[in-house]
Amino acid sequence: MKLTIDRDVFLENLNIVSRGLPSKTSMPSLYGIKMDVTSQNMFLTTSNMDISIEVMIEDKSLNIEEPGKCLINGKFFIDIIRKVNSKKVILQLLDDNQLYIKVDRGEYKLRVMNYEDYPSIDFVTLENPLSLETSLIKSIIRETGFATAKSEKRPIFTGVNFKLVNNELTCVGTDSYRLAQKKINLNDSYNDFNIVIPSKSLDELLKIIDNNDETINVYFESNKVLFKYNNVMFQTRLIDGQFPDTQRVIPTSYLATLKFNKDDLVQAIERVSIVSPHDTEKNRELTYSTVKLNISKNQNIEISTSNSQVGDAKEEVIANEIDAAEEFQIGFNSEYMLDALRSFTDYEIIIELSGNVKPFVVKGTNTTNLLQIILPVNL
Amino acid sequence: MKLTIDRDVFLENLNIVSRGLPSKTSMPSLYGIKMDVTSQNMFLTTSNMDISIEVMIEDKSLNIEEPGKCLINGKFFIDIIRKVNSKKVILQLLDDNQLYIKVDRGEYKLRVMNYEDYPSIDFVTLENPLSLETSLIKSIIRETGFATAKSEKRPIFTGVNFKLVNNELTCVGTDSYRLAQKKINLNDSYNDFNIVIPSKSLDELLKIIDNNDETINVYFESNKVLFKYNNVMFQTRLIDGQFPDTQRVIPTSYLATLKFNKDDLVQAIERVSIVSPHDTEKNRELTYSTVKLNISKNQNIEISTSNSQVGDAKEEVIANEIDAAEEFQIGFNSEYMLDALRSFTDYEIIIELSGNVKPFVVKGTNTTNLLQIILPVNL
Repeated sequence: MKLTIDRDVFLENLNIVSRGLPSKTSMPSLYGIKMDVTSQNMFLTTSNMDISIEVMIEDKSLNIEEPGKCLINGKFFIDIIRKVNSKKVILQLLDDNQLYIKVDRGEYKLRVMNYEDYPSIDFVTLENPLSLETSLIKSIIRETGFATAKSEKRPIFTGVNFKLVNNELTCVGTDSYRLAQKKINLNDSYNDFNIVIPSKSLDELLKIIDNNDETINVYFESNKVLFKYNNVMFQTRLIDGQFPDTQRVIPTSYLATLKFNKDDLVQAIERVSIVSPHDTEKNRELTYSTVKLNISKNQNIEISTSNSQVGDAKEEVIANEIDAAEEFQIGFNSEYMLDALRSFTDYEIIIELSGNVKPFVVKGTNTTNLLQIILPVNL
Repeated sequence: MKLTIDRDVFLENLNIVSRGLPSKTSMPSLYGIKMDVTSQNMFLTTSNMDISIEVMIEDKSLNIEEPGKCLINGKFFIDIIRKVNSKKVILQLLDDNQLYIKVDRGEYKLRVMNYEDYPSIDFVTLENPLSLETSLIKSIIRETGFATAKSEKRPIFTGVNFKLVNNELTCVGTDSYRLAQKKINLNDSYNDFNIVIPSKSLDELLKIIDNNDETINVYFESNKVLFKYNNVMFQTRLIDGQFPDTQRVIPTSYLATLKFNKDDLVQAIERVSIVSPHDTEKNRELTYSTVKLNISKNQNIEISTSNSQVGDAKEEVIANEIDAAEEFQIGFNSEYMLDALRSFTDYEIIIELSGNVKPFVVKGTNTTNLLQIILPVNL
């Protein structure tokens, strides 16, 4: 194996596959980047067994003198290429199991790992793709991923449910205390599916997709899904099990509807929640740590919290519109509320409430396909 | 106690005293900010028992309706003022041991702590100051503090030695493996002193001093030192004990002198040291983790490292000048060398070597008062 490649092109591709390297694994070969060089292209592969990434480099700067293959420790290799200023990188696999790297005035020889130890990665067959815009995938991940559970107690809740029925795609993330739902009508018709993708995998995918508005092709198999984007194949395992039917959680009638300037509401909640200790999933039932919203027929809405150890906080936010059948108080986890509000790009948001123990809905005035639902905390 | 103050002015002063709040303490009253309001001024005091900070606010925006005093939890109080957009802050101590804070549409009531529990802080008497430029104090801290010991094994090495003899101030930081020394000739005459200031305290002082070229007054007592800067008094305890005489460590004759472009050398060392595991004080004796410099009569100087697990790295750096009586190799901890090089603002640096087991000196070509000395690692 011997080749020359532009350093910037190489680093860009290494940065992509670096997302697939495990932080910790019992299978040491996974710390390696698998390099396969054919007479035309170079393939880089990484996997942490949850996600697997393969890039194909066919850049005009790539000059392959001799095809070959090797497995090289990802961390050290990427660190070297990252620190190098040189325009070109020369790579050569030496007879004594070392990878020779020549850059400007620097020469590196890294011990290679045993190529045969690397597990075989079966990528999904590239047939029958569902094509989506990258901007759509990115917004789905940003708007629903945060609502999934961080704890592995109920694994099904650590992923985002993607469900296609009659060309309507519904994406849901929930940790059972809050729920984010985005619906999209697809133009092209495609076979129905109902899968749960690990939220951690989606976060890594988000880091790889750049801001160019391009197409991403999605390929399915029973237990995995593959996203193909430019020269990158990003595959993740799916989460086993039945995702609960969440449609029944969504309220259908309301006691009160409030319209706020989003930033005013975010800032007021941020301030009052300083006084309330930050909630964790564990202590969220402690009512002292929740923020209260006072629904009245008056446009001056009071947001408050009280903490016996610290003190009391109260902010007034002026609602842009208010339609309340009765006056009541509702308590919520301020982090959940802030996450929900921040998922909207809208200037104005709507809160629809069905009473102080029923889930309430947060919507954007201009966003029609996204719902955030939060279960209140008993006061 | 009742007053109004401009929010930005107040926050700026709170940010300064926040440096004195302990991250952990067995004396809970220290989590508080002591506020003392006279008919003219407001004093804020914090202490973690190593450092104590007092600011005096006499801003034109400060409108005192009623003098008073209280002790208020620093974390929550500062967080609130930081998150507030309002122009003014109103503070009022209520009868029920709560501090009322009014900002725009927000009202906060924080439980105050028991003012009497706060330990009395004795600040050094403000007599007979040594006056220094803030830029000088900042450069001393930046150029010598990093070389002090991180471990408390030998407490004397966790501080910077400030020694004044015949109006020459010598500042030394060392962890016994490396040493940083800065000398300054003072214009004004002052009594000799020889003290060791905790490096951690100096780091906090550095964060408080801004970039205006002003004067800082230093006041001494047997076991503490006070820096007075604008409206801020910053006091720190001193480290007990005799700082060793470090003059004998400084080499007086050299086998080789090398002159390099600083950035070229820094980058080459950064790259080869990727292959060598990062040194900690614990494993610095392991020779495989050191970087080697090959001194030859040739201007192409080789920097290399070798790690049996990872591989070999070699970079060539072209010396701008070289004067070597003989050829030899020297090994060093790459982190120590990088710290030393980065302490210079010079474009060009000089390395003076006395052999492969003797300490070597790093200097700047234009900096005359700073020396960095590193003990080599046996190869």
